[in-house]
Formats: sequence, structure tokens, C-alpha cells
Amino acid sequence: MTGKFPDTVINRLTLYHCILVDYIKNNLETITSSTIAGLLEIDDSQVRKDISLLKNTGKSRVGYNVAELKISIEKTLGFERPKNAFIIGAGNLGMALANYNNFTDYGLNVVALFDNDKNKIGKRIKDKEICNIEELPSLADKLNIEMAILTVPMASAQSTVDFLVQSNIKYIWNFSPTVLIVPSGVKVWNENLMGNFLQFSYKIGK
Amino acid sequence: MTGKFPDTVINRLTLYHCILVDYIKNNLETITSSTIAGLLEIDDSQVRKDISLLKNTGKSRVGYNVAELKISIEKTLGFERPKNAFIIGAGNLGMALANYNNFTDYGLNVVALFDNDKNKIGKRIKDKEICNIEELPSLADKLNIEMAILTVPMASAQSTVDFLVQSNIKYIWNFSPTVLIVPSGVKVWNENLMGNFLQFSYKIGK
Repeated sequence: MTGKFPDTVINRLTLYHCILVDYIKNNLETITSSTIAGLLEIDDSQVRKDISLLKNTGKSRVGYNVAELKISIEKTLGFERPKNAFIIGAGNLGMALANYNNFTDYGLNVVALFDNDKNKIGKRIKDKEICNIEELPSLADKLNIEMAILTVPMASAQSTVDFLVQSNIKYIWNFSPTVLIVPSGVKVWNENLMGNFLQFSYKIGK
Repeated sequence: MTGKFPDTVINRLTLYHCILVDYIKNNLETITSSTIAGLLEIDDSQVRKDISLLKNTGKSRVGYNVAELKISIEKTLGFERPKNAFIIGAGNLGMALANYNNFTDYGLNVVALFDNDKNKIGKRIKDKEICNIEELPSLADKLNIEMAILTVPMASAQSTVDFLVQSNIKYIWNFSPTVLIVPSGVKVWNENLMGNFLQFSYKIGK
């Protein structure tokens, strides 16, 4: 399956979802496209167009029903199909991601962290154990896990990925600022933090 | 100033830059567009088109000169104009970003971290001190800093931003998964990690 929505639409839908979660916390029942547009500093027409792509999105005179719109986004983006993943590297970034509450809300379930540092192995981040990286192949096989979130230092990123590929990991969310070489059949998503920052700084001319 | 390149081009240029840095480390002098395209699994024609947008990019029979192409990307994206910023929140994510070597390579200079936790205040991450958040207004003024990287928990994100805005911070790179409300004149860039992940998981149908 390849997605039918472009990345920019998916990205905006996730931001709308953030706003809806806030609205539900504050017991607000309806929201207008212009409110969403105002919060995100984008065009009202863009918001309406994005929402029209979703299935079963009713709109009343006073705006969208917050709960319905939230569920509609979740169904479209597949939040309800949980995805299990390992975090590779229990440094600050790996720990931050393991602690990130929102992952489970969005259907991403971090099962365990892996590291090669004996001082870290056996410790826990919330309910997640830091395991010895040597155990990864057998655990990936036993738990049928195909997705890894890579947060190791740049210098060991490629060798770690080679090891993951040998362990039948098929999907890699890469936070290391390097371009990884993988065989066909393995998919890498580069979380290019500097690229994201540069888009921002370039736009504001700073 | 508004950028003339779309986000997608800037993002790809940063990835090309990653590859070029690797090439220089390995003492390789030339690279072809098809090598870059292969590593990133994109079209060769896309790479050539992106590079043609840069100034002063010579291409010989054997490919692009790695060092020249790297400098050309850096000039285009403004790496050589350093941007000073504070990190707000010295949790795992704030620490990870403070430790991120690549920031300085790309012209982002983290001057200090801020927190309200007395156990953290006064400690150092590399050469960067964790300061008391109460000191932020005077330090921002003294050091003329207008950019903040926000990594506080979601629940305190909005109140922290209100405080930053009062302290004349004009540019906020937001890692908290919430949509912030700011007055006009303040620019927010949402680092929507879940949105990025969902683009990946949506594409692979997992």
C-alpha cells in the first residue's frame, strides 16, 4: 500500500488532531475551520479542503463536531492499528522518545530500548526495559517486531543498521544525522532535524 | 525575507549535505547525481534539478566536486550566519538537542539551557550552562537572543511560551506536541514528531 495523501496533508491533519485533543480536554464540542486556520496561521480554505478529504465528516452551522473530527482523522491515518517498535540507543534522545506520551496516543508502541552500555542495560524508562543489543535478533523474532527507531551516535549508525537489517528489521525511523545504506526491501525515514530547522531559519531570514 | 525555495527542496538539500560530509570524511572528491539519488531513493532528475537551483555549481564529466557542492549548499541555506538560541527545558530532549553536534555545523549555536528544577540549575551540558528560567529575560536582553527551542512538557508549554513572548523571544522551535498561541510578530515552527512518524507509517501501510 502507498499512501494516497501527500506528506503535507498528513502533517496538517496531525496538527488539527493536536488542537482537537486540547479542545476535548477543555470540554469544547465544536470548532470552525477558521479557528483551526488561525491557530496554525494557514488559510481557512486549506483546512476545509483537508477535512473534506476525510470520510464521514459532518459539519453543522456552528462548525465541526470535535469528537467526530478527531475520530475521523484517527481512522484516516490509522492510529487504531498499533505499531510495535524498538528504540535503538538509550541516550538522551532515546530516553526522550521512550518518555514521549503522545506515541501511544498515536498508535506507536515502544516495546523496549536497546543499548550496548552495561551501566544502562537492565534499567527501565517507565515500563520499558533497556535490553542488551545482543538480544535484539531473538527478541525481534519472538515478538515479531519489524520497526526500529534509531537514536545511536552518528559514528555507529551504519554498523547498527547493518545489524538491524540482519535481524530482519524492515522499517527504520532514523534520528541520526547521516544517510544510511540499506538493501532494497528495508525502508528508512530520515528524521532530519537540521533540515527542519533550516526550513524555519531560512523562512524567517535569520 | 521569505525563502524562495520550498520546504521540500530545503529538506533534500540538507540530506545532500549529509552525504557530502560523509564523502569528505572518506576523502572522495566527486559525486554523481545518480549516486545521491540512489542513497535517498529519489529520482536522479530531481537531484539534478535541485542542484541546478544553487549558485556556482560546476559539474564535470565525472560528477560534482564534493567540496564545492557542499559550500554551495551552505551558502544557499545560510549556514555561515550563526543563529544563537536558548533551549527551554533541560529534560532528556533538551539535553539531547544540546548534545547534538550537528547544530553548530549548520550554524545553530545553543548558548544556554533553562529550567525551573533546582537540581538541574547550575549544571552543564558540554560547555552550556543550565540556568534558572527566571534569569531568561535579562539574559535574552543582554545577549540579544530572539530564538528559543522549546522542549518543556506539554502541560506547561503554553505558559512557558507566554513567558518567552514577554521576554521578547520572537522565534520558537516547538518540540512540545501542542499548538501554541502567540501574538502576531512571533513565529512558531512546530516540530511535529508524531506527524513525521505518521507520514512514514502511512506510506508503508504499517
